[in-house]
Amino acid sequence: MTKTVTTDHPVHEFIATRWSPYAFDEKPVEQEDLLSLFEAARWAPSSYNEQPWHYIVATKNNTDAFELMVSCLVEGNQAWAKAAPVLAIGIARLNFSYNNKPNRAAIHDLGLAAGTLLFEATARGLCVHQMIGILPDRACEIYAIPEGYEVMTGIAIGYAGNPDKLPDDIKERDAARRPRKPLSEFMYSGRWGSVSPLFRK
Amino acid sequence: MTKTVTTDHPVHEFIATRWSPYAFDEKPVEQEDLLSLFEAARWAPSSYNEQPWHYIVATKNNTDAFELMVSCLVEGNQAWAKAAPVLAIGIARLNFSYNNKPNRAAIHDLGLAAGTLLFEATARGLCVHQMIGILPDRACEIYAIPEGYEVMTGIAIGYAGNPDKLPDDIKERDAARRPRKPLSEFMYSGRWGSVSPLFRK
Repeated sequence: MTKTVTTDHPVHEFIATRWSPYAFDEKPVEQEDLLSLFEAARWAPSSYNEQPWHYIVATKNNTDAFELMVSCLVEGNQAWAKAAPVLAIGIARLNFSYNNKPNRAAIHDLGLAAGTLLFEATARGLCVHQMIGILPDRACEIYAIPEGYEVMTGIAIGYAGNPDKLPDDIKERDAARRPRKPLSEFMYSGRWGSVSPLFRK
Repeated sequence: MTKTVTTDHPVHEFIATRWSPYAFDEKPVEQEDLLSLFEAARWAPSSYNEQPWHYIVATKNNTDAFELMVSCLVEGNQAWAKAAPVLAIGIARLNFSYNNKPNRAAIHDLGLAAGTLLFEATARGLCVHQMIGILPDRACEIYAIPEGYEVMTGIAIGYAGNPDKLPDDIKERDAARRPRKPLSEFMYSGRWGSVSPLFRK
């Protein structure tokens, strides 16, 4: 199952076919694939090569640990994400490790690593659905995450599944298109809001 | 010129060969390629599909506009980034457009879009070097960026060039390896710092 988008300018197929499903198949993710996904995140660039990204990962075959991670998601996300064979939590170290000063790029670079992970997943036929709807305080407590780290994202990983089994409201969300603003609305030149001359052929 | 890294687990070649050069060739970036890079960013996922990313782009053929953008970088970055044929500034809208409430994922999602753009660039033989070392206040003034937007990154785009022409200190940085922490240092299970059982074969 794929959902290829129609783009205004050609992009690599892994970008055009990537999507965030609400329905996950029960097929587990092979250990080697999972390690390669996080290996991809590992090689993302980061400010001063700080590599601020950290992850806690739970696979469904470890039932107790998996349930615990499900409990760190908001209810609306638990409803569908518990079906994914792998869950992870994305965490950023907020200060540089070499001088303990604030790393202004920390959260940005966690996102950058997520982008790299997403791409590796797509290349392997896997799907990823990230969530901001998590319970950071609960995660900090459960996992004993130290001060100075920000719990940012939930990450569901697996193979896209059959949406027919989803509750109706989520099924609807799954089927919905996620349109994008045209490039001209967020790519400017010379001045904020000024359409880039790149669009003039 | 490429710099393929040796990874502990296999990753897609576009991840293993991506790097952030300090030396850029003078060869310009074709308009279609540039639009495809930002089209790739456009299709990144984002929290509530907010698409918080915005860019101001300057190409070298537009000398005045390009010089103005160079002046928004810190001096250390101006030294090498002025040679890139394209510069951009990455900006995130901090509040959701549908209710004006804070978007906790805004900066993260700008990073995610950068990851997507980076991948498209690598697929096209282009290189990207992102910088956190910019002058956000100056950029806000020059480009009349409204309140509620955070100026985050400078983005140099082009083809990798010959590092021999770089000043010595930058040449050294360009040649340096950017090693990564092992996966086991940032991928945990069950508890912070607890090595994931995924590493046990």
